[in-house]
Amino acid sequence: MTEIPIAKPILDLNDRLAAENRLLLDRHGIFMLDLLASPGAGKTSTILATIAALRETYSIAVIEGDIASDIDSRKIKDHGIPAVQINTGGICHLEARMIGQALETLDLEALDLIIIENVGNLVCPTDFYLGEDCKAMILSVPEGHDKPLKYPGVFQAAQAIILNKIDTMPVFNFDERQFRIDVDRVNPHALIFPISATIGRGVKTWAQWLAAQIEEKRSGQEQASN
Amino acid sequence: MTEIPIAKPILDLNDRLAAENRLLLDRHGIFMLDLLASPGAGKTSTILATIAALRETYSIAVIEGDIASDIDSRKIKDHGIPAVQINTGGICHLEARMIGQALETLDLEALDLIIIENVGNLVCPTDFYLGEDCKAMILSVPEGHDKPLKYPGVFQAAQAIILNKIDTMPVFNFDERQFRIDVDRVNPHALIFPISATIGRGVKTWAQWLAAQIEEKRSGQEQASN
Repeated sequence: MTEIPIAKPILDLNDRLAAENRLLLDRHGIFMLDLLASPGAGKTSTILATIAALRETYSIAVIEGDIASDIDSRKIKDHGIPAVQINTGGICHLEARMIGQALETLDLEALDLIIIENVGNLVCPTDFYLGEDCKAMILSVPEGHDKPLKYPGVFQAAQAIILNKIDTMPVFNFDERQFRIDVDRVNPHALIFPISATIGRGVKTWAQWLAAQIEEKRSGQEQASN
Repeated sequence: MTEIPIAKPILDLNDRLAAENRLLLDRHGIFMLDLLASPGAGKTSTILATIAALRETYSIAVIEGDIASDIDSRKIKDHGIPAVQINTGGICHLEARMIGQALETLDLEALDLIIIENVGNLVCPTDFYLGEDCKAMILSVPEGHDKPLKYPGVFQAAQAIILNKIDTMPVFNFDERQFRIDVDRVNPHALIFPISATIGRGVKTWAQWLAAQIEEKRSGQEQASN
């Protein structure tokens, strides 16, 4: 086996800017979710399903990270939700300074929840803290159950793992039992939410968990200010 | 729209090492294919199907690029094909120096074709020339037909675009006509090969095209040496 040792990039500056983003969000009582996934895993449809479940309770905005095109942000805006497009011009991940610029364009006074749709990439966005309260990831059934061992970084970074397109399980040879064993091996603390964003299955459970995180942040902040 | 301008990384050293790889391969009359795709698009099963179609005619080896694990290289070796594992330790793409090290471990005298399975990532491997004769990419039907406009870089870098998992088209809302229009928009020279690697559909046409490229390189080299 040929194994190539490579030093971790120094992410100091990014982390400092991320901490500034986080302070700004905390000051406004906003919860920020960073959503990671491969191209085509269903990030935008999961975000739309999450918005549909939570928009009565919370005021939501979306930050869309894309290599090129504004296809996804247009979809979000079509549903009457504020969306900021970050076009990375070929860069494979979002960085804290890009999020900082995006936050400047949003009406933070009015918001409860910001969802970041990161660039479609199961590898690079993992290493970049953006100031979010929580990283979640989507794996879609067609990608295969063997991904936790092949891409352990993202499974370790994610607090919540959304397993999307579960309605297609009969078509693919997806071994959910093995998937859960392997997730448990790389990240025993991760929660798994099986959903189908397009037909709406499982979305309520996922959205309830997310709402609980938002409430927990709020009650923590209220206690701190008392 | 927030747009972040970022300078292209300088890839001079990589390109120099890639050119060395290419010289070495040319000297041995070996054709090298660099295969790019997202996680779960079916790289390993496409490689296995390609090997099955061409192993009577050509002597083949595989270079497996992975973030972690040797799941794929074990699958290749199970079929009696030499496989070199490159474990990038978190890095999101293969680089020419890694391929150079891998080539040192292969019996180049005995080989006709080397297939590189790049790291599962539709973004970063695009920018790295490894010394290959051809870059090809796989998009799988479940990823969606809108990917050429969202990830134009990889569609522009690929000479051949394999559309995999076509047997699942009825399950997904994949618009093949729109896909072809959008591919044509970003790369009018690309060839599209619809296949199902697992049931073997379309693999013969793809393998024949690849064989023709191998033969073309050989006849070009013979003419040059006459």
